[in-house]
Amino acid sequence: MPEIRHALTTKREDDFAAWYQEVITAADMAEESGVRGCMVIKPWGYGIWERIQRLLDDRIKAAGVQNCYFPIFIPLANFEREAEHVEGFAKEMAVVTHHRLIDDGYGKLIPDPAAKLEEPLVVRPTSETIIGDAMARWVQSWRDLPLLTNQWANVVRWEMRTRMFLRTSEFLWQEGHTAHASREEAETETQRALEMYRACAEEDLAMPVVTGEKPENERFPGAVETWSIEAMMQDGKALQAGTSHYLGTNFSEAAGIKYQNQEGQEALCHTTSWGVSTRMIGGVIMTHGDDDGLRVPPAIAPQQVVILPMLRGKDEAADAALTAYCEELRVMIAAQNALGERVRVLLDTRPGKAAAKRWAYVRKGAPIIIEVGSRDMEGGVVSLIRRDELWNMDTGKANFQTPSREEAAAGVGAMLADIQSALFTEAATRRDANITRGVGSLDDVAAHYSGDAKYPGWVEVQWAKPTGAALEKVVETLKEHKLTIRNVPIGAQPADGACIFTGEPAVERILLARSY
Amino acid sequence: MPEIRHALTTKREDDFAAWYQEVITAADMAEESGVRGCMVIKPWGYGIWERIQRLLDDRIKAAGVQNCYFPIFIPLANFEREAEHVEGFAKEMAVVTHHRLIDDGYGKLIPDPAAKLEEPLVVRPTSETIIGDAMARWVQSWRDLPLLTNQWANVVRWEMRTRMFLRTSEFLWQEGHTAHASREEAETETQRALEMYRACAEEDLAMPVVTGEKPENERFPGAVETWSIEAMMQDGKALQAGTSHYLGTNFSEAAGIKYQNQEGQEALCHTTSWGVSTRMIGGVIMTHGDDDGLRVPPAIAPQQVVILPMLRGKDEAADAALTAYCEELRVMIAAQNALGERVRVLLDTRPGKAAAKRWAYVRKGAPIIIEVGSRDMEGGVVSLIRRDELWNMDTGKANFQTPSREEAAAGVGAMLADIQSALFTEAATRRDANITRGVGSLDDVAAHYSGDAKYPGWVEVQWAKPTGAALEKVVETLKEHKLTIRNVPIGAQPADGACIFTGEPAVERILLARSY
Repeated sequence: MPEIRHALTTKREDDFAAWYQEVITAADMAEESGVRGCMVIKPWGYGIWERIQRLLDDRIKAAGVQNCYFPIFIPLANFEREAEHVEGFAKEMAVVTHHRLIDDGYGKLIPDPAAKLEEPLVVRPTSETIIGDAMARWVQSWRDLPLLTNQWANVVRWEMRTRMFLRTSEFLWQEGHTAHASREEAETETQRALEMYRACAEEDLAMPVVTGEKPENERFPGAVETWSIEAMMQDGKALQAGTSHYLGTNFSEAAGIKYQNQEGQEALCHTTSWGVSTRMIGGVIMTHGDDDGLRVPPAIAPQQVVILPMLRGKDEAADAALTAYCEELRVMIAAQNALGERVRVLLDTRPGKAAAKRWAYVRKGAPIIIEVGSRDMEGGVVSLIRRDELWNMDTGKANFQTPSREEAAAGVGAMLADIQSALFTEAATRRDANITRGVGSLDDVAAHYSGDAKYPGWVEVQWAKPTGAALEKVVETLKEHKLTIRNVPIGAQPADGACIFTGEPAVERILLARSY
Repeated sequence: MPEIRHALTTKREDDFAAWYQEVITAADMAEESGVRGCMVIKPWGYGIWERIQRLLDDRIKAAGVQNCYFPIFIPLANFEREAEHVEGFAKEMAVVTHHRLIDDGYGKLIPDPAAKLEEPLVVRPTSETIIGDAMARWVQSWRDLPLLTNQWANVVRWEMRTRMFLRTSEFLWQEGHTAHASREEAETETQRALEMYRACAEEDLAMPVVTGEKPENERFPGAVETWSIEAMMQDGKALQAGTSHYLGTNFSEAAGIKYQNQEGQEALCHTTSWGVSTRMIGGVIMTHGDDDGLRVPPAIAPQQVVILPMLRGKDEAADAALTAYCEELRVMIAAQNALGERVRVLLDTRPGKAAAKRWAYVRKGAPIIIEVGSRDMEGGVVSLIRRDELWNMDTGKANFQTPSREEAAAGVGAMLADIQSALFTEAATRRDANITRGVGSLDDVAAHYSGDAKYPGWVEVQWAKPTGAALEKVVETLKEHKLTIRNVPIGAQPADGACIFTGEPAVERILLARSY
């Protein structure tokens, strides 16, 4: 097999963490901002987020959930009301204490002591408590239920160790918050949101996930149940890519979210919350990226097809003719449909060598790259690369196809659908191949993760679902192997053996993994 | 003329400010949050914002501007660099000083003294300085220019007196930031953004505006030129609904935004910034609202057509037949186009009396409301109200039309376009009728505003464009009459008289008005 000269300097197998950072830089997705823990999301990264937003927002609206906007600032008193919630969040919040700056007399600005807030405000780390206040105002009777709200917003959780997209102090997300008349209805909504996230991850992001319930120790602070979608990254680690919580009546009690039922009695609402964030973009990188950069699934690609005329910058008439030929192609492609929408196509006529631009779009992961030179134009053809089939394995060169211009245009819709499907299949095959089942003891788990396998993936084990102190002991034990419990997969086989931690009869199966 | 029983308790002519608040409540658009200066934007209000976002974002992208996202926190040092900018903003910012809370030992949370930030962070009031840092990293050569970025974000400016949508401590907006090689190109971009805002206001919001340059005293802190769109509210006051700034090289100098030009020399970039916010929604209310509530221009209506079956809740089979009849109508209408998009239609089958629901949508200002009762169904017709022609002036009752179901469906596209156009024409006529020209002296201005006219509108006067202390004196004089200079309208007649303030030969015409 010929040697291939990949576009990145770091290969996944050499240093996965460094590779991840290099993809972000090479694809021009984001960068450090200079402000502690905050990143700048650049056009290509933000374009992917806009696509995720658009598709997920359609799913949210289709479920009858309505978007609102709630304050970024939350009074401390809101946090004090829910004991578990404050315990979980108070340690990592940005606190606003002043509302004015003054000159300190030496040309430096300082918070004005005369403008100290009586009650400090917290920059929202999540909005259950402030939305709970609104729900208490909005819900009076059973007729007001279910109350289904969502907001797209920024949130801040002070983080000591940050990694772009995966863990930043400020991040972008959506948070759904709903109130219901009964536990059953709230649990149904919790599952609906979870299924929506699964569909978004698998159908839009082409990122296969395992859905399931988190163990008690991993619950959202204040939740009765927390469910997650877990995605397997190419290094075999798990990424929690979205969560859906059944909150019981905990937040309703704290905020007074009550309704009069059909019998005229007052009752507490059962609430839920669910969210996904820009963290999903980190998942897309580590699911689909390769040694040449990112590969963006067509459904969420800001541009699905990029056309690069090979302009010479010397012969104006020739360049104009080539640009016109490409513009005709752009119009033809823009009239095509792929994955239920018009194809997003960019004709890039900025100055610069076509080969340099080609590699820039390879690193960005544009699904289809079409280069057109004067000889292509003369022959009525184009030179086309599918990003997911970049290399010709026989020659070690870029794997160009040369369809006629009309064939290329007519074929992009089906080709984009095929790329979307191929990326999902590749990732799902990898996920399935890297979940090891039937591991029957803690020693076997330890052996699995200390063995030769570079990327040992996940193991499925059976357990007795210990709680409290017994669960803490399990968590400690797993921590020694750098493992965590990911979730109790929906649809797993029933338990039929012994708990690997306690030896008691097992009650369910859980997934163990290293994780982000 | 018969007496009409309007849907609101407060009439515009009785108490415009109270009417404004009542519309917001009656249309269920927003409410006070309980957090100082912050509001909750409810589904109907947020739906309008989503529509404005979608339409304006299309305009922004069509101009080649790319969306990004920058940190919400700005280090103090960024503000210290640009003297005018800090002077303009430092007085009203939210300052983050701690990153953790602890229990004070008495069950109350307090900022953890051990988690005090070395350098306080400011919650962005605007992002010139933080985006300037990014531009300095991104721009190296003339090839990187122009750099055209935008972000959709929340910002915070501490406000002592707030009014929903018009002036809140937190608000939502977009801020465009661009860098250019020359003053000329930056000024062209400043004008492009201004014209984009004019088109957005007039075509999407049906809100006529006057575009022009703000006087020196009203410039954005740090700007060389500030341009605005000014809309006339129904009480004759002006609302600054959007601004576009040419920033010269002020921010480039402060942040080091430099490029190597084609001759290999280093030069400072010329930058611009431009923004509109949720304040525009306040403008929509005060432009189009009437004594029955809001009237939403179809282009930005979350739902353009609302179908209300008159369900009885007694005869299930009859209700099912009526719902089916309405669902067929919904499908027919959803297949229609209006204003270049598919019609947004809602079939509302929630429990409740049809008349109560009708008036709820009247107050919300849904452009077309279609009620269908069993007799309508039998006759193959529907009962349709155009919100902008709500009353039958002969009878004093709601002005129902009764087209056949098929006619109603086939006609909604044209009817929505007609409503959009009618709302604009009505507002433009009012604006034009309430700008008084040819006012030749300060006494005449004073007389105009102290006269009998309840809503004296705007006056156009000529001035010599004083600067510095002379301008400050003018501003003080106007303040005595509660007046401000709105802008120097583009396209106004050339000056041909004397300055009403100084008696010197005038150089241009300006608009004076009371304002929000």
